[in-house]
Amino acid sequence: MTASSHASPIGLWLNGARGSVATTAITGLLAVRDNLMPSTGCVTDSPALDRAPLVPWSEIVVGGHDILGTPLEKRAEMLVDNGVIPRPVLSPVRRGLAAIEREVRTGYDPATHPGTQADAVDRLASDIGDFRSRHGLERVVVVNIASTEAPFPGQPEHGDPDAMAAALSQPDRLVLPPSSVVAYAAFQAGCPFVDFTPSTGARLPALTALAQRRGVPFAGSDGKTGETLLRTVLAPMFAVRQLRVLSWAGINLLGGGDGATLEDPHIASSKLTSKSSVLQSLLGEDVKAPLHIDNVPDLGDHKTAWDHVSFEGFLGVRMSMQVTWCGVDSTLAAPLVLDLTRLVAAGHAAGQRGPITQLAFFFKDPIGTSEHSLAAQFRMLTAWANALDRPPGL
Amino acid sequence: MTASSHASPIGLWLNGARGSVATTAITGLLAVRDNLMPSTGCVTDSPALDRAPLVPWSEIVVGGHDILGTPLEKRAEMLVDNGVIPRPVLSPVRRGLAAIEREVRTGYDPATHPGTQADAVDRLASDIGDFRSRHGLERVVVVNIASTEAPFPGQPEHGDPDAMAAALSQPDRLVLPPSSVVAYAAFQAGCPFVDFTPSTGARLPALTALAQRRGVPFAGSDGKTGETLLRTVLAPMFAVRQLRVLSWAGINLLGGGDGATLEDPHIASSKLTSKSSVLQSLLGEDVKAPLHIDNVPDLGDHKTAWDHVSFEGFLGVRMSMQVTWCGVDSTLAAPLVLDLTRLVAAGHAAGQRGPITQLAFFFKDPIGTSEHSLAAQFRMLTAWANALDRPPGL
Amino acid sequence: MTASSHASPIGLWLNGARGSVATTAITGLLAVRDNLMPSTGCVTDSPALDRAPLVPWSEIVVGGHDILGTPLEKRAEMLVDNGVIPRPVLSPVRRGLAAIEREVRTGYDPATHPGTQADAVDRLASDIGDFRSRHGLERVVVVNIASTEAPFPGQPEHGDPDAMAAALSQPDRLVLPPSSVVAYAAFQAGCPFVDFTPSTGARLPALTALAQRRGVPFAGSDGKTGETLLRTVLAPMFAVRQLRVLSWAGINLLGGGDGATLEDPHIASSKLTSKSSVLQSLLGEDVKAPLHIDNVPDLGDHKTAWDHVSFEGFLGVRMSMQVTWCGVDSTLAAPLVLDLTRLVAAGHAAGQRGPITQLAFFFKDPIGTSEHSLAAQFRMLTAWANALDRPPGL
Amino acid sequence: MTASSHASPIGLWLNGARGSVATTAITGLLAVRDNLMPSTGCVTDSPALDRAPLVPWSEIVVGGHDILGTPLEKRAEMLVDNGVIPRPVLSPVRRGLAAIEREVRTGYDPATHPGTQADAVDRLASDIGDFRSRHGLERVVVVNIASTEAPFPGQPEHGDPDAMAAALSQPDRLVLPPSSVVAYAAFQAGCPFVDFTPSTGARLPALTALAQRRGVPFAGSDGKTGETLLRTVLAPMFAVRQLRVLSWAGINLLGGGDGATLEDPHIASSKLTSKSSVLQSLLGEDVKAPLHIDNVPDLGDHKTAWDHVSFEGFLGVRMSMQVTWCGVDSTLAAPLVLDLTRLVAAGHAAGQRGPITQLAFFFKDPIGTSEHSLAAQFRMLTAWANALDRPPGL
Repeated sequence: MTASSHASPIGLWLNGARGSVATTAITGLLAVRDNLMPSTGCVTDSPALDRAPLVPWSEIVVGGHDILGTPLEKRAEMLVDNGVIPRPVLSPVRRGLAAIEREVRTGYDPATHPGTQADAVDRLASDIGDFRSRHGLERVVVVNIASTEAPFPGQPEHGDPDAMAAALSQPDRLVLPPSSVVAYAAFQAGCPFVDFTPSTGARLPALTALAQRRGVPFAGSDGKTGETLLRTVLAPMFAVRQLRVLSWAGINLLGGGDGATLEDPHIASSKLTSKSSVLQSLLGEDVKAPLHIDNVPDLGDHKTAWDHVSFEGFLGVRMSMQVTWCGVDSTLAAPLVLDLTRLVAAGHAAGQRGPITQLAFFFKDPIGTSEHSLAAQFRMLTAWANALDRPPGL
Repeated sequence: MTASSHASPIGLWLNGARGSVATTAITGLLAVRDNLMPSTGCVTDSPALDRAPLVPWSEIVVGGHDILGTPLEKRAEMLVDNGVIPRPVLSPVRRGLAAIEREVRTGYDPATHPGTQADAVDRLASDIGDFRSRHGLERVVVVNIASTEAPFPGQPEHGDPDAMAAALSQPDRLVLPPSSVVAYAAFQAGCPFVDFTPSTGARLPALTALAQRRGVPFAGSDGKTGETLLRTVLAPMFAVRQLRVLSWAGINLLGGGDGATLEDPHIASSKLTSKSSVLQSLLGEDVKAPLHIDNVPDLGDHKTAWDHVSFEGFLGVRMSMQVTWCGVDSTLAAPLVLDLTRLVAAGHAAGQRGPITQLAFFFKDPIGTSEHSLAAQFRMLTAWANALDRPPGL
Repeated sequence: MTASSHASPIGLWLNGARGSVATTAITGLLAVRDNLMPSTGCVTDSPALDRAPLVPWSEIVVGGHDILGTPLEKRAEMLVDNGVIPRPVLSPVRRGLAAIEREVRTGYDPATHPGTQADAVDRLASDIGDFRSRHGLERVVVVNIASTEAPFPGQPEHGDPDAMAAALSQPDRLVLPPSSVVAYAAFQAGCPFVDFTPSTGARLPALTALAQRRGVPFAGSDGKTGETLLRTVLAPMFAVRQLRVLSWAGINLLGGGDGATLEDPHIASSKLTSKSSVLQSLLGEDVKAPLHIDNVPDLGDHKTAWDHVSFEGFLGVRMSMQVTWCGVDSTLAAPLVLDLTRLVAAGHAAGQRGPITQLAFFFKDPIGTSEHSLAAQFRMLTAWANALDRPPGL
Repeated sequence: MTASSHASPIGLWLNGARGSVATTAITGLLAVRDNLMPSTGCVTDSPALDRAPLVPWSEIVVGGHDILGTPLEKRAEMLVDNGVIPRPVLSPVRRGLAAIEREVRTGYDPATHPGTQADAVDRLASDIGDFRSRHGLERVVVVNIASTEAPFPGQPEHGDPDAMAAALSQPDRLVLPPSSVVAYAAFQAGCPFVDFTPSTGARLPALTALAQRRGVPFAGSDGKTGETLLRTVLAPMFAVRQLRVLSWAGINLLGGGDGATLEDPHIASSKLTSKSSVLQSLLGEDVKAPLHIDNVPDLGDHKTAWDHVSFEGFLGVRMSMQVTWCGVDSTLAAPLVLDLTRLVAAGHAAGQRGPITQLAFFFKDPIGTSEHSLAAQFRMLTAWANALDRPPGL
């Protein structure tokens, strides 16, 4: 039931619209929509979700914010050179990229923004609202896919929506990190929000409360695309076989913008925390789990991760396993961004509000659940999505 | 509910009682029973199975057949030298090993057996029946863990139990391979049967019919302990993420008796067939999947497997994954042999007959089901085992 | 001394001129000559060889034979699509490819060739001689880079040049495999010969004698580009450290034309023999060394090899090492073909005849020497090449 | 020429005599001497060194310093449990271990030593001198194999032996780190010194001058046993093939005392610096080379290292290689300690003084040379050792 002649179009608003993941998602959406390429990697096209009330690919309109100026076409060309987008795909989607480029507005950058954070929220919310009106969209899903932020220090106002609203209006206060400003703006505009990064986003009590008040759902955090995806099938294997994991060491080598960003240890700490909790949750606290992320520019978007697992079996005998993963992060992430757009839109249409825990399948650090087993998460996902009812008249 | 003061003891009859897996299982059972070692690797001690009506470890009595003469204590010493059994475990279980050694009878070897195969069945069944009576056992589970056989050519009588019974009595006929003679003897003695090897065992229509007639269950085939275990979690990961696997190449290096046996390509073909069907079932027919097994004597029981997976994601981008598995086959297999004994005994007690498809979790080539996903198999297992009711009075 | 204003141009005649390695070598020669790309991978541009009297890249003219008809430009486009030739290189060399395409003649195919093998030799030698005259070349190096042949059965005439000459003229006799027909033609035309494949080529006593008679040198066999290259540095490491290698298992996964060719076990046996002798020579006969080559079409030219080495150290302690090599065979082979052309030409100019053992550095199965250590081979190479004197007047 | 009936015995004085490497070296020396085990891993038993004037194994007497009190027999038992020493070796060498244990004196610990560093030097030198006299030894080689120290801050007196002598006598001054106190004591006692660790040892101008004055040689630093050993054969392979290495990332997982020591980032920095310089020297400054050392206690002495190399070939095509090394550090290091004892003693006997650069083969950070290629180092070693002449009368 992925296509319906009655479906109104929806919007996908990307915060970080000119980044690698967003550019790949946009290019791919255009190519899949026009049947240039199959939708490989899109979970929502799985037969297991065929009863979910999802809008067809052709009914998704894209816009977004970014603080960088390189236009989408240029970014797509760079991704062709890096092996992320196949060359033959580019030419037929150029016109579509240019159209979406015209829907990209300047994002929020605390270093250059002149007014209060409340002003910033208003401007972003207004950009999103205009986009919705201009295209007559039933709803718009806001997805944060901007660069990972460093951890943001807690503030007293993070616990209460009214106090937060007041604080945002104070001059010279930085109450929220940019990802949370975006989440706030989404909620203020009545839009669902997805955080595909480990940044703070909507994960503050005040923002959760705001989403509930505004009647919108949200999902996150930190898309699960490579090493962690593997861990969420391998760790349960050891668990169900009653094999005792002693240590699980890992190293990630990557270049590109992501590699450069994560070279800052303060920023990397956000990612490392999100990744580490997965093993602890699946295997317990006792597993020694050193983890490294290294910037290796020559690898570009072709990330290589190596994991070494040491475990104990019957009679205490030691054994080991190693995994090497050579994946392209943008390629792995982009279809999930599209999937989440369809799924969160369907949740919103069905009246869901607050965190959608059933989307844990997509995330390293799923909001509202400690279920990390990919198999269990997939059952949660399919049960939830196939049971969604669209409101009457749709 | 793993312990019950009312539980009658059961028997475990090992065909191949002096092999590496059997010796490890016996040594481990003795050590776990006396609290010398935790039961790491035993799935039936998982909290997920705590409602299953399983006999406690202390209520399992062991005997068996073997065609080789090296006694269990000597075999256990060899396994200590090979790093499969920790040295400190040996001394406290020596007396127990000697006691079980006295329960081992000469197995069936077609090269030396003088009479018809019906005679062989009678003798084996009689050995098992005597063991049951002598120890006052409620039931005996027969587990085949002898060396893998070469594929056995089909015979007309394989389809019908009466024709088979007649053929077995004919002089100079080899109607069945040894593993099937053992299965036949188990059924004739009213005992459940487990085939932990890829040999023919009970997988003939005539034997399935015989099990039904005798009211006994059976399970198999080919214990899933290493590379294939990994494949049954990794392949479903690619499937649920809609990533298209293009090829999945593998190589297994192993020494020990298993390595020497599998150096014979005819025998190895049994194993390779069993392993290959798993990927086809999980990923479809199109995956190119070369697979090798090499005898590397210096590795002994420390098997090393390497898998290379090539797959395609969004927009057709190619990626790859490699896994290296360094496992000790006997260590991985032994606790599963003990688990299957408890589970099949519980099934028998609950009145099950014929193939128990819900035990697919343990096997590379599960009888009666094409479900190969480990996560799905574990759900089948726990649902089945936790719902078993023991007959009144137990 | 790689450039000399007096140098006369030389020829490179490729048997298999439209194959992947040849197309890459030709494209690269054109690109390097015009300073479009650095000569990465070309050993002869190493400072360690700066006293060798080598012709400059600009003084090499290319022609060749092939039995397949796809023209070089088309082949180069295919290699762009496969990631072997970078797209930006193609356009500026198109004109050069077309010019070389005009120098390619139909190769010798025993299945379609109408006359005797002597006729075939005459035709091939005549093609090469015409090429030399037409371009006023000082000398022409013939390099066989055609698909690997199956082992060719020995013939009585292989031992003597006169008997061979007589046999080649007999109708309906296949005295030589195609690679040896090419070597014969090269020698008949007075040209040095290089066999970059494991095919028979010049490795017959009668052909060695012929080369001596004609005063031409030759080199081979089987270019050392990936897994074997690694082995020739790793095995000596174990040897000099007195560590005892117990086993060295390997698997090669590759697609492309090479993968398809080697899927035939008879043909693969040529390659496997050549590869295995390396370890035996470096480590002795006792090392268990299973080796596999699998055709995995999706990998194309991106070959992946995995080696597992088990070894013993002080007090008999066991350790292991694994290597994964992801290489592009044509990329690795092409610069060596160009290197060999320059080096063999220099040897010819210096009056060498018969096998040049000092080129062992380039080969898996070097003619005339059992030295397999890469470091020792490099010393042999540099000592030899730097000491070559060009004849007076050059 | 490894045995000579005239040879006087020599001494091996181990600083860190009760550590894992020392205990393994001592146990192995006893076992090899009594022909219980072959000398696998001992480079000096290679045929390539058969003209070097080396004392036989039976003519080496062992003593040493340590600041820890666990006796050698107990340490050897622990190493048996950890798989470093085979159990059957222990029993026949117990008596020998006890005899050597009686030759171990309390080492220098700045935290507990009461007097000046000059006092410490005097005491250590006196212990060594007494050992030499007591056993009538021709010479004693002092080898530092104690735990790696953190980098020690430079002091003005490090440049001049007289200033250093004066400073050492000042109360409350810590002029030298413990490893350098040991080197000083060795030189004061007229003994050659080897630093098998990355600690400062003799690598200060004042100590080099002192060695020259006293007429004794020294060697170091940081034994090359695993990942770095591999790098010194693999990096030259890329270099001679003119392949351009872009990045070389590495991770080391290890437990045991070494793992615990290196968990301190300050101490680890000594090791990381020593390891990194190797790649820079072999491949140039441009190679991105992140490197990690992680303490993974469950691995014990079984260290696992993983290296990922990304490189560029002809026409700029990217390729990669990965190596996994599973080695036992003490097993790899111990025979080299014994080799160095024989070689440095031979150098001393031949009248060498100051740094012996020809021993670079053994070290990650060889003193006095920038030659890091293992093959080149082995040639230097054999040329030097085979040319040593023992003084007349020996």
